[in-house]
Order: sequence, then C-alpha cells, then structure tokens
Amino acid sequence: MKFEEKTLKRQTVFDGHIFKVVVDDVELPNNLGQSKRELIFHRGAVAVLAITPECKIVLVKQYRKAIESVSYEIPAGKLEIGEEGSKLKAAARELEEETAYTGTLTFLYEFYTAIGFCNEKITLFLATDLTQVANPKPQDDDEVIEVLELTYQECMDLVAQGKLADAKTLIALQYYALHFGGEQ
Amino acid sequence: MKFEEKTLKRQTVFDGHIFKVVVDDVELPNNLGQSKRELIFHRGAVAVLAITPECKIVLVKQYRKAIESVSYEIPAGKLEIGEEGSKLKAAARELEEETAYTGTLTFLYEFYTAIGFCNEKITLFLATDLTQVANPKPQDDDEVIEVLELTYQECMDLVAQGKLADAKTLIALQYYALHFGGEQ
Repeated sequence: MKFEEKTLKRQTVFDGHIFKVVVDDVELPNNLGQSKRELIFHRGAVAVLAITPECKIVLVKQYRKAIESVSYEIPAGKLEIGEEGSKLKAAARELEEETAYTGTLTFLYEFYTAIGFCNEKITLFLATDLTQVANPKPQDDDEVIEVLELTYQECMDLVAQGKLADAKTLIALQYYALHFGGEQ
Repeated sequence: MKFEEKTLKRQTVFDGHIFKVVVDDVELPNNLGQSKRELIFHRGAVAVLAITPECKIVLVKQYRKAIESVSYEIPAGKLEIGEEGSKLKAAARELEEETAYTGTLTFLYEFYTAIGFCNEKITLFLATDLTQVANPKPQDDDEVIEVLELTYQECMDLVAQGKLADAKTLIALQYYALHFGGEQ
C-alpha cells in the first residue's frame, strides 16, 4: 500500500500576513485517481507552560476573533520570519511580552495543530524558575491581554465551564497533571 | 479593560469545501484603533480514542498533504453538513469507516485546534467495548488508511521519533496516561 500524494498543480488562492492558502490537485496513490487538497501554510508558533514558584500556571486571557469570544490560554505566539531555528528564543520573547516573566525554558513537545489541512506546528516549552522582568518587552500593539496565575484546579474549572477550550493549553495542562500531579 | 473586537468589514477571500477564509477589519477595544484578522471557518470535527480489550490504542496511518508526510493519528473526521447536533453519531461513523470497529462512546473533551486564526473545534470521544463490524461502512474514496493497534509505549515511541506529532492524538495519549496509567 502506498500513501504519498503527488502534487499535479498548486494554485495559491490567498497570501496573507498570518497564513497562505493553496489548492492542490493531487494524484492519489494505488491508482485511486485524482483529488483536491485545500491547504493552509503557517510559519509555526511557540507556546509556554509557565509555572510560578507557588506552583501556579500562568494563563493569558484574550479575545479570539475566530470564535468571537474571550479565551484562556498559555502564553504563545507566532514565529517571526527567520526564527524557525531559534524557537527557544522566540518562546522566551513571547513569555516576556505577554506575562513580563523570564525563566528557565525546557522543550516539551512539538505538534501540528490542525494536520488535516494546515501545517502550523507549535513547539511547547516548560518555563520554571520564573522571575519578573523590571522593564519587559512591550506587548504587540493590537493585543489586549490580561495575565492570570491559577492553580491546576482553577484551570480545570475553566475547562469545565467551557472557557478554556484551546488544544495547546489542554496539552500543557495534561502535561502538568502527569508530571506535577494535579487532581484528575 | 475591554476585550471584544467589533467587526467593521468582512471580506471572504476563499470559500472551499473544507474551510472558508475571511479577512475582517476590526475595531480594537480600549481605543487602540483598527486591525485586520485573517480567519478560517471550519465546520468542526470529531476524534476517537479507541481502546481495544487488550488495552491497545487504535491509530490510523495516513498521508497528510499539509505536511507532505505520513502521520499516525487517532481516528477522526470532519462533521458533515447538519451534523453539529449529533457529534457522537459522527464519531461512531468515523470510527467504523476508518477502523471497522464499533464501541461504547463517551464524551471526553472539546477543543479549538488553532484558536488564533481558525474556529475548528474537535470533539474527542473515548471508545471502549470495541467489536469488529462484519460489513463496515466504506472509507472515503480519497482516503488511504492503514489501521494499527499499539500499546501506549509504542505510541510514545512514535512521538519520540517525530512520526506522531498531531495535537488531538497527543491529547488522547495524555488522557490515556492519566486515566489508564501509561508509563511516563
């Protein structure tokens, strides 16, 4: 059984600041004929599970236009151009910009968020030994963010209420429960 | 502090079979001015952590054009039109189509996969009491899928090798570890 789909033709239908959209005509393997694939290309992102000395989890509250709602998430941000090779640095920057914390960063996982149609890959780091920065890097000028420090149980209450429903944050919370022993 | 971003104008730039792409002009809260939001609208999907009587995890191996690579994932599929109210049924269908299993399905989580720019929400179910269907529903005619049944440790080996890097599957595996006690 073969798996690979060969690209016969690629049409770019949108080339934005955040992502690019293409439609591929593909040749299916095993003589199954042709099909189309609608695809999103994204530069990738970093995210940080930041844990305070009091064992609280640092979350940011922000508005997400895609769901027209406020969302609670771990700090995260897109990679900038040319930053693919320095994800740890990007993660430290996002953590400082969004929360005014610096810390010791450790790689945890990398994963594709919506692999069926999008190549966005998030690299998730753990941040410990947090200290407040006196003059932190400023937030992006179109971001409105509130920083919260919550216990694992308070985070899971937000999950139960449907206010925390973000995949990368859920992965981080499960990691916390597995390695720092939150209640199930 | 206010969070909501008001839509001033919406332009649809792509209207496909899998997703729709729009660009919104938004008014930022707190007199921060205007900005643009590039957004993907998706109907949503279901996914299933299916566990065999031998405590193995059912994965499907398939080609993912967005990353030009083979990927190992839990069974999943898009909601069809009008299926938003019957996600459990959709999950049972996808499980049967992709793996020829039926089982007892229980809701676990729902989460947005790429909340920064996309409204795709995945509803994740647990499937236990699995039994093989004699004449299963056929797979989609443009899908090439191989079904595998792996131990938790074998799944984590695929993670370590970079072959399993799918967010929904990582959430399912961590759920397994938290509730069925996989090795850390």
